[in-house]
Parts: sequence; structure tokens; C-alpha cells
Amino acid sequence: MSNIASTPKPPYYAVIFTSVRTACDNGYSKTANRMIELAEQQPGYLGAESARENIGITVSYWADLESIKNWKANTEHLQAQRNGHKLWYESFKVRIVKVERDYGM
Amino acid sequence: MSNIASTPKPPYYAVIFTSVRTACDNGYSKTANRMIELAEQQPGYLGAESARENIGITVSYWADLESIKNWKANTEHLQAQRNGHKLWYESFKVRIVKVERDYGM
Repeated sequence: MSNIASTPKPPYYAVIFTSVRTACDNGYSKTANRMIELAEQQPGYLGAESARENIGITVSYWADLESIKNWKANTEHLQAQRNGHKLWYESFKVRIVKVERDYGM
Repeated sequence: MSNIASTPKPPYYAVIFTSVRTACDNGYSKTANRMIELAEQQPGYLGAESARENIGITVSYWADLESIKNWKANTEHLQAQRNGHKLWYESFKVRIVKVERDYGM
């Protein structure tokens, strides 16, 4: 999660998840790690990048919209989302995006 | 930069800039702040989000691709990009994306 993701030639898709945490851990760290592990097993998963200071930004990369939809509907992930709403996030924003172009060094 | 950006109803565009810093400051912090200030003045700028741990992730939001192209070509920004390549970044990746959908809490 803490490296620049190696992604294929565009187009592909991404989910930009930006969040402000509450002060409450209550299983957060354990679940966050489990969600990474679980995401990596999903069809269409291409990689992810993550950093947190005042806000947290996690960008996960996916082959297509279908893969994103399936990941959102994953049973274990749904439970984590519910706990996120209730316990772990003060506020958050999810943006579903299409990566059209990339370059780097 | 450190809050969740208030963005309009999609579609709009974004630049996901992921980077690994070198140990060298050499004007980095000053330039980073100036680039935020300068970006905010550009036509089509909608907001930005930023966090750094092992890697840095900055997502800037834009009304259209034309605005992103103009920002990339801004003279002062071009100089910052050159210094970024030479001095400040071990590696980086830029992804130009179209935001198709968003939701949040």
C-alpha cells in the first residue's frame, strides 16, 4: 500500500477514497489491513496507494467498473463499510474514476 | 489541502500525483506551498487533497482536460516540475482521470 502502484497501460479504473478518521480505533487497524489483503484477492484488482496525515487518501486501481462493483458488494467488505460509517470515519468521499492517461519517472 | 475537497457533481477531472521524495529539501516546502496557491488561481481548478507517509498522494480536481493541460504548461509550474525531476522526487506517477461518480458522508 505504501509504494507507487505498478499499473498497466490506461484505460483502467480507480477508486479515490478520501476520509477523516474519528478518534476511535475499535478494530480499525486490523480491518484496514484485512481489507487490503482481501482487495488483493479480487478479480480485476490492479494495485493501491495509501497515505494519511490530516486526511487519509487511498487510491485503489481496477481493470473495469464491474470489478469495482463486485468489490463494493463483497460481504466482508460490506461489514467493514458499515463499521466505517458508524465508528471510524468522521466524513469520507468516494470517487469512481477512469484513468485516461499516465506518465512518470 | 488537508481537507476533503468539495467538488461539484460529476463528471469532472482529476490528476492523481503519487510520489516518493528524496531526502533533499532545497526549496521543496516553499515551492509546494506556492504551487497550491498558484493552482488555486487557475481557471477550472476545483480543489485538492493531499497526504504523505511513505509515499505522497496529491489529488487535484479540475473542470476539464483543457484546465489540466494549461496548469501543466504554466511557466512557474514548469520550473517546479523540472526541480521535482532533478531534486525532489525519487520517483513519481501522474494519472489523469475522469471522475464519473462520487458519494460520501
